[in-house]
Amino acid sequence: MATNITYHPSPVTPTVRSSLRRQQGLTIWLTGLSASGKSTIAVALEQALLRKPYNLSAYRLDGDNIRFGLNKDLGFSPKDREENIRRIAEVAKLFADSCTIAITSFISPYRADRDLARQLHHAERPGGEPGVPFVEIWIDVPVEVAEKRDPKGLYKKAREGKIPEFTGISAPYEEPLKPEIHIRSDQTSVEDSVKIIVGYLEEKGYLSAPPEVNEV
Amino acid sequence: MATNITYHPSPVTPTVRSSLRRQQGLTIWLTGLSASGKSTIAVALEQALLRKPYNLSAYRLDGDNIRFGLNKDLGFSPKDREENIRRIAEVAKLFADSCTIAITSFISPYRADRDLARQLHHAERPGGEPGVPFVEIWIDVPVEVAEKRDPKGLYKKAREGKIPEFTGISAPYEEPLKPEIHIRSDQTSVEDSVKIIVGYLEEKGYLSAPPEVNEV
Repeated sequence: MATNITYHPSPVTPTVRSSLRRQQGLTIWLTGLSASGKSTIAVALEQALLRKPYNLSAYRLDGDNIRFGLNKDLGFSPKDREENIRRIAEVAKLFADSCTIAITSFISPYRADRDLARQLHHAERPGGEPGVPFVEIWIDVPVEVAEKRDPKGLYKKAREGKIPEFTGISAPYEEPLKPEIHIRSDQTSVEDSVKIIVGYLEEKGYLSAPPEVNEV
Repeated sequence: MATNITYHPSPVTPTVRSSLRRQQGLTIWLTGLSASGKSTIAVALEQALLRKPYNLSAYRLDGDNIRFGLNKDLGFSPKDREENIRRIAEVAKLFADSCTIAITSFISPYRADRDLARQLHHAERPGGEPGVPFVEIWIDVPVEVAEKRDPKGLYKKAREGKIPEFTGISAPYEEPLKPEIHIRSDQTSVEDSVKIIVGYLEEKGYLSAPPEVNEV
């Protein structure tokens, strides 16, 4: 569809930007059932990264700021869910490219959609620079436990047939096959979940300032 | 369309985030004809903000990273142009909310679309906090000058009828009535344009670190 568009090289390459911002960008993609604890963990993780000792730029994308804004034209049909995740992946990638840690918190039930998000992030960037890291985290909880929690009463409505295509009840959740991190949220506290995630990011070197480059 | 969505309050309010990031977010919206110099000014402005003495987080949204990604499903019909600008405005707002200076560089020829972008930015944020600043900058050049520049040969193609609905030739450009800044790019160097914009941002206090807040 996009025609008449040419690519403008910028002197601010990804390497130069990371050096100037003293930070690497990446996307942390949380996936799991409704009421699995994704948003709670996302909020706690964002805070941990924003505050000491990290003082990093981090930003959450979730239903609150996406479904009411960018994606307010989309519903919950399979096609709209796919487009919802595609747009979120593209926006997360922009944040990661800008040297922020993007934290997405969406059910994202389909493997194909999550794989597309990963591919978008891993695609080479202009100037032959590599893509950005994509960390898929499965916030796993048995559907029975999620249904008992049901803080918004959504499972109840789904059982009553008032919400069609509700993930885990009347629509599938395709479990991640090889997530970078797998957390059983009914067996792990929010605090420990954040420790596990931050530990992984540290081990990978994602939280360290990148080397300064000469041309800066 | 978006149902079954509830709003999650976060302890990271906009004020807390600005204090932690030592930066305010805002959107700088460049508008003007093709070949008016928007992208050139955007690149130079982004560099100025990223580098000393400012060392701020700034990020450009332009055809390169939007039309090839998020909005690759959109064409150039009036309806698609409107949706293009709506999505860009929503994404810029997310960047501004994350305490980055978003710089958008799109023709954005319709007043109604730019006004919508402004309204989205000015809307109150969760917790009753005010919206984010929106700085509309008209990169103004007579169409004859733009057509002579024609670095991509687009005006030529438009004159030959090979590009339908080309702004300034076969589609309207609605001039901004009250832009925050008006730059005649055929009478102002890129360097001076950046000085004008940065001077405005400084005068408004947008480039200063916000006050630290107690709860941080």
